[in-house]
Amino acid sequence: MSELREKALKFHKDNEGKIALHCKVAVKNKEDLTMAYTPGVAEPCLEINKNYDTIYDYTSKGNWVAVVTNGTAVLGLGDIGAGAGLPVMEGKSVLFKAFAGVDAFPICLDTKDINKIVETVKLMEPTFGGINLEDIKAPECFEIEKRLKEELNIPVFHDDQHGTAIVVLAGLINALKVVKKELSQVKLVLNGAGSAGIAITKLLLKAGLKNVILVDRKGILCEGESWMNEAQANMASITNGGKVKGTLEDAIKGADVFIGVSAPGVLTKEMVKTMNKGAVIFAMANPVPEIFPEEAIEAGAAVVGTGRSDYANQINNVLAFPGIFRGALDVRAKEINEDMKVAAAYAIAGLISEEEVKTDYIIPQAFDLRIAPKVAAYVARAAIDTGVARKTDITPEMVEEHTKKLLGI
Amino acid sequence: MSELREKALKFHKDNEGKIALHCKVAVKNKEDLTMAYTPGVAEPCLEINKNYDTIYDYTSKGNWVAVVTNGTAVLGLGDIGAGAGLPVMEGKSVLFKAFAGVDAFPICLDTKDINKIVETVKLMEPTFGGINLEDIKAPECFEIEKRLKEELNIPVFHDDQHGTAIVVLAGLINALKVVKKELSQVKLVLNGAGSAGIAITKLLLKAGLKNVILVDRKGILCEGESWMNEAQANMASITNGGKVKGTLEDAIKGADVFIGVSAPGVLTKEMVKTMNKGAVIFAMANPVPEIFPEEAIEAGAAVVGTGRSDYANQINNVLAFPGIFRGALDVRAKEINEDMKVAAAYAIAGLISEEEVKTDYIIPQAFDLRIAPKVAAYVARAAIDTGVARKTDITPEMVEEHTKKLLGI
Repeated sequence: MSELREKALKFHKDNEGKIALHCKVAVKNKEDLTMAYTPGVAEPCLEINKNYDTIYDYTSKGNWVAVVTNGTAVLGLGDIGAGAGLPVMEGKSVLFKAFAGVDAFPICLDTKDINKIVETVKLMEPTFGGINLEDIKAPECFEIEKRLKEELNIPVFHDDQHGTAIVVLAGLINALKVVKKELSQVKLVLNGAGSAGIAITKLLLKAGLKNVILVDRKGILCEGESWMNEAQANMASITNGGKVKGTLEDAIKGADVFIGVSAPGVLTKEMVKTMNKGAVIFAMANPVPEIFPEEAIEAGAAVVGTGRSDYANQINNVLAFPGIFRGALDVRAKEINEDMKVAAAYAIAGLISEEEVKTDYIIPQAFDLRIAPKVAAYVARAAIDTGVARKTDITPEMVEEHTKKLLGI
Repeated sequence: MSELREKALKFHKDNEGKIALHCKVAVKNKEDLTMAYTPGVAEPCLEINKNYDTIYDYTSKGNWVAVVTNGTAVLGLGDIGAGAGLPVMEGKSVLFKAFAGVDAFPICLDTKDINKIVETVKLMEPTFGGINLEDIKAPECFEIEKRLKEELNIPVFHDDQHGTAIVVLAGLINALKVVKKELSQVKLVLNGAGSAGIAITKLLLKAGLKNVILVDRKGILCEGESWMNEAQANMASITNGGKVKGTLEDAIKGADVFIGVSAPGVLTKEMVKTMNKGAVIFAMANPVPEIFPEEAIEAGAAVVGTGRSDYANQINNVLAFPGIFRGALDVRAKEINEDMKVAAAYAIAGLISEEEVKTDYIIPQAFDLRIAPKVAAYVARAAIDTGVARKTDITPEMVEEHTKKLLGI
């Protein structure tokens, strides 16, 4: 047994998992019982029955997020089942709490049926202030997210797609500062046209990218190719304006940026050499990236990011999702829209000043405590500006202060 | 606004509800992150994928109970909706934690469809070690519980039925000691043949009661009566052997015990006067009982219990459900069966010694910290004896110690 394996199993077993209930009120005597339970508890019940929105005043709903999975795409492990995904979901709950004071609860659903997942999450809505979809495989994740967004009045966010997209955009904003290029001017190649890859592309387009080619295992996504699934065909219609066909090797020539959410070692040094000067490479396959940073640098790349914590420039979702939900919950946003996502990326990127930004420091460290308060505030501002904030007596500054308070800073 | 109302609303609002997440592990640096999340977390995932039962070792499943409602029978408030029931469910979660260290999470389902409730709870099974059904109206609650018990391999318990039944049995065991009668010899009349009344009757029959008459709004349950629903007709076939017809007034003559889970004031002093000497009365309608204790005593009753905390002998579910789930979870019971329920009642009753038991002390106070450890141990013993405990390396003594430790005693 490897050392990591042994330590990780012991860590989980010793603690009997990672999450428990915390009671915000004590029940030590009859008086406490009278308030927390009968007869006192009838009063908030009656208020909520009269005016449903007071549920946010009298219950914890407004701070609880469901971390929903069916275990079909857990980490790099694939379809291991809903129960086997529970350690990851508990871990996600811990990160939500540790990084932004969000109470998150794992809901592992033992089904692959899209309708059942949508129905179940809808039925549970009274308990939760938001829904974080996690580790659900494509293409099911697209329809589940789409339908839940349409049918629920609370934020629904698929972190594997949008969390990744936000952190990539944040990293790219700063990487392009280092190489002195504009997002609207660069040629970008994205390898791995799955759920994360498509979400990244959409967000980058929203943020101003114009020239992008997507590549998947079977080649470049191009209008007319017969092997593409529906989501890929949709992407082909809004990317690859030059209708380039072929492989990654063909796409990468003359590119300024490579983004990989694909497989170990697929980007060779030879390919990097065909990229433009000042190339930016985000090789996020985990744990073995599309190309290792030292090789990419040797081949001429200017800035390299990966998903690994042992290299500079880690593209890590934990920079985004806690603060995003914090901001969305605090203003009681009815959704997390594209503007809120772009705002989150700018919040993260902005934590590194023009003077500080450099080849090996384009993105803050996970434990930079400034992140969540700033992301939450930016997300709140964007929610207010786009009219999706349902709480109107709160400002972005108040959200930032609230987040800091929750983090004890 | 009444003082209670004002205080209860402020109490809930000031705390923004009653429950939050507690992380059992800290995430303060990269090393922590490596264990609680990637890459370490993949190891327990793989173990669970190989051997599902290790989910109890590596996650918190084994200590989480879902408190499931659809809000159709909340307290005495009736069908107020799933969301309006949330303050009660959060309160229940707080009691589970405070009284037995059980982590309980409210699941408020926005539907009245039996199939949807059953399906949803089944889908969520990976996250929970047990299911506590709460405040779901009859007759739907019967089918939901029955189907979940059949289809799930974790304990399913409808507290409004069985919790009440257990505490009634506990109180009755001691009340009959005071009046020196045997359960198998007494004539018992139960008024209110709904879900709680039927569950009480079944458990008392299991514990040795022979002579019982059930009464509902339309009169005595008797074979052949046309107004009875299916559950009532079933009860009529196993009770009222003398085939007595009529009203509560007819039933109560010569009775030794009256149990009311019905409506305020329905038991008159005149009726009590027709009962046998040494009459026991549990008048549990809340907040206004079937008869007030002082009136019952005036009319000749020997022992009186109610649901109220401001009178002696409070029949309170909180004496039972926390310890029951504690015991069931600790031995990983696949169900909570009748033997476990009877054992719980004897555990509660047994906390008052032969010397201590008296007219106004037949049942322990809610805050008697001896209760949950003893109930948990007795329930564990019964689970082991009836072969439903799936964990075999644990004894009732260990369960008692574990419960004490969780309560800090």
